Amino acid sequence: MTKKYIFLFLLITGFAWTQEDQLPSWREGDSKKAILEFVRKATDPKSTEYVLPEDRIATFDQDGTLWVEHPLYTQAMFALDRVKKMSSLHPEWKNEEPFKAILTDDKLAISTFDEHDWALIIAATHADMSVESFLHVVQEWLAASKHPRFNQPYTKLIYQPMMEVMNYLRNNGFMVYIVSGGGQEFIRAYAQQIYNLPPNQIIGSSITTKYENQPNGIPLLMRLPKVFFICNYGGKPVAINLIIGKKPSAAFGNSTGDKEMLEWTQANQRSKLMMLVLHDDPEREYAYGPAMGLPNTSVGTFSAQLLADAKQRNWFVISMKNDWNRIFAFEK
Amino acid sequence: MTKKYIFLFLLITGFAWTQEDQLPSWREGDSKKAILEFVRKATDPKSTEYVLPEDRIATFDQDGTLWVEHPLYTQAMFALDRVKKMSSLHPEWKNEEPFKAILTDDKLAISTFDEHDWALIIAATHADMSVESFLHVVQEWLAASKHPRFNQPYTKLIYQPMMEVMNYLRNNGFMVYIVSGGGQEFIRAYAQQIYNLPPNQIIGSSITTKYENQPNGIPLLMRLPKVFFICNYGGKPVAINLIIGKKPSAAFGNSTGDKEMLEWTQANQRSKLMMLVLHDDPEREYAYGPAMGLPNTSVGTFSAQLLADAKQRNWFVISMKNDWNRIFAFEK
Repeated sequence: MTKKYIFLFLLITGFAWTQEDQLPSWREGDSKKAILEFVRKATDPKSTEYVLPEDRIATFDQDGTLWVEHPLYTQAMFALDRVKKMSSLHPEWKNEEPFKAILTDDKLAISTFDEHDWALIIAATHADMSVESFLHVVQEWLAASKHPRFNQPYTKLIYQPMMEVMNYLRNNGFMVYIVSGGGQEFIRAYAQQIYNLPPNQIIGSSITTKYENQPNGIPLLMRLPKVFFICNYGGKPVAINLIIGKKPSAAFGNSTGDKEMLEWTQANQRSKLMMLVLHDDPEREYAYGPAMGLPNTSVGTFSAQLLADAKQRNWFVISMKNDWNRIFAFEK
Repeated sequence: MTKKYIFLFLLITGFAWTQEDQLPSWREGDSKKAILEFVRKATDPKSTEYVLPEDRIATFDQDGTLWVEHPLYTQAMFALDRVKKMSSLHPEWKNEEPFKAILTDDKLAISTFDEHDWALIIAATHADMSVESFLHVVQEWLAASKHPRFNQPYTKLIYQPMMEVMNYLRNNGFMVYIVSGGGQEFIRAYAQQIYNLPPNQIIGSSITTKYENQPNGIPLLMRLPKVFFICNYGGKPVAINLIIGKKPSAAFGNSTGDKEMLEWTQANQRSKLMMLVLHDDPEREYAYGPAMGLPNTSVGTFSAQLLADAKQRNWFVISMKNDWNRIFAFEK
């Protein structure tokens, strides 16, 4: 009797399981099919493309792939706010670029900041404090700040369909990593709470840190105003090797900075999936970049060349407009 | 009936479990007691020093902590052999130090090589090939080489008592990492097979790598003759933060290069354990360094100051001679 009930129970829950759509925010189409097909092959021991559980690794870019990156990267918004907040301690900034442009809210000048400008801003706002203090500063800012267009906290601007992919992969035994050009510690400040991703699954650009013993004997890691590593373009495979040490089976990106990560994933011998999010939905989110026939933007460039590469290499291009029936969790 | 049998089965296996000594190569004493006590507190939800499963992290130094490091680090032995193997392609080495000393087997000169010498040797022997090729080269060498005194493959010179600690911690939910001053990829070449540790749990010094697309379109990571990161002294906490992002609960080392890792572990608010292996057994292994009242050695320095620090900070000093009833698995 008992055995029969257990069998029935398993049958019913098993049935419910196969019926449940684990990607409900995805419309039926090539992208959704590709994800389902990939997981089916990767987890089927009889498939020639079976991936051993310990080799199931998926990497996600962050800005523009998992959350909104326009009009400016969230971390850049944080940096600009921090310049304003710190300005009373730096009266000289009133007359010094790039700080002057920020303090006078010169949006045009800000939109044309180059790498050197941003390096100065990052050094002034992201360093000279301990790693622990930095995490607190970021968390405070995230709790208090809202996106100018959506009027929502930045952490609510996660793409719900991508969260579903992340969870679907985890439910199938994948170890999920974020591999971002953005700052590793900036992402760590919210990743545990938002994605349930612990700090060892966050890979990103980093600043040089220095171990110091304080006078009270308690050690800390000080953040120095000096770049340690840029995790973008070829830096993504380099960081993946350094921190994971295996090629991913699945990689998700949205810009030219993700190309090498997708190439590296494609070089994996087993089942693999390479996808790029295309921002083609000006109504619900944004549309930008040459791939959309629109002017280039320095924030999340999806070049026409990348689109051509994707087609040639069988990378899937996810259309936000067509593939996603919902973009944010807060939508009804 | 069935329930009763299950209960009896659990009782019997539970009883067997509590009876089994999981550290059989350890003699009864303060060191063994400290390890057992630490794990008891860390895993008891009622203890004020309870450590959540996701925060259970243990870090082990490699050379001199997990395996033999005398007369020379295994990786240095590899480098010397490789200089000899590569010498036919480099006729100029016959007249160039430090290569000349290696090719003429000048042991005295080799024992006094400084950092600059080793940097030249590492650059000549560890670079200008892909990460994948390097792993193969190391694996081939390890399979073919034996330790000059023990006449055993280097991978058989793992300390059995430390393997037991590593497994005991894993059985209690700890994520175990190696954090070595030695090369990360060198350790990765054998860590999966020897310790059952995947590459993402191996932290070490590293060489700069560069992402390249080969003419056939297959990408690879090339190892450049340039240091990327030295994972020793303050570099150990820096690397732990970069790759793990949490403070360890337990740390094991054997030399001055491990001091900062133990300090960083001690700064953890919860249950913690800091231990140093003292090489005090010239019969079964080696005895060296000022802590033993012996001359300093540049290979695994345990300074008198470190011994004083350990006493002052309640770090446990493991006596190989007194605490271990067996050192190597191949002993009868």
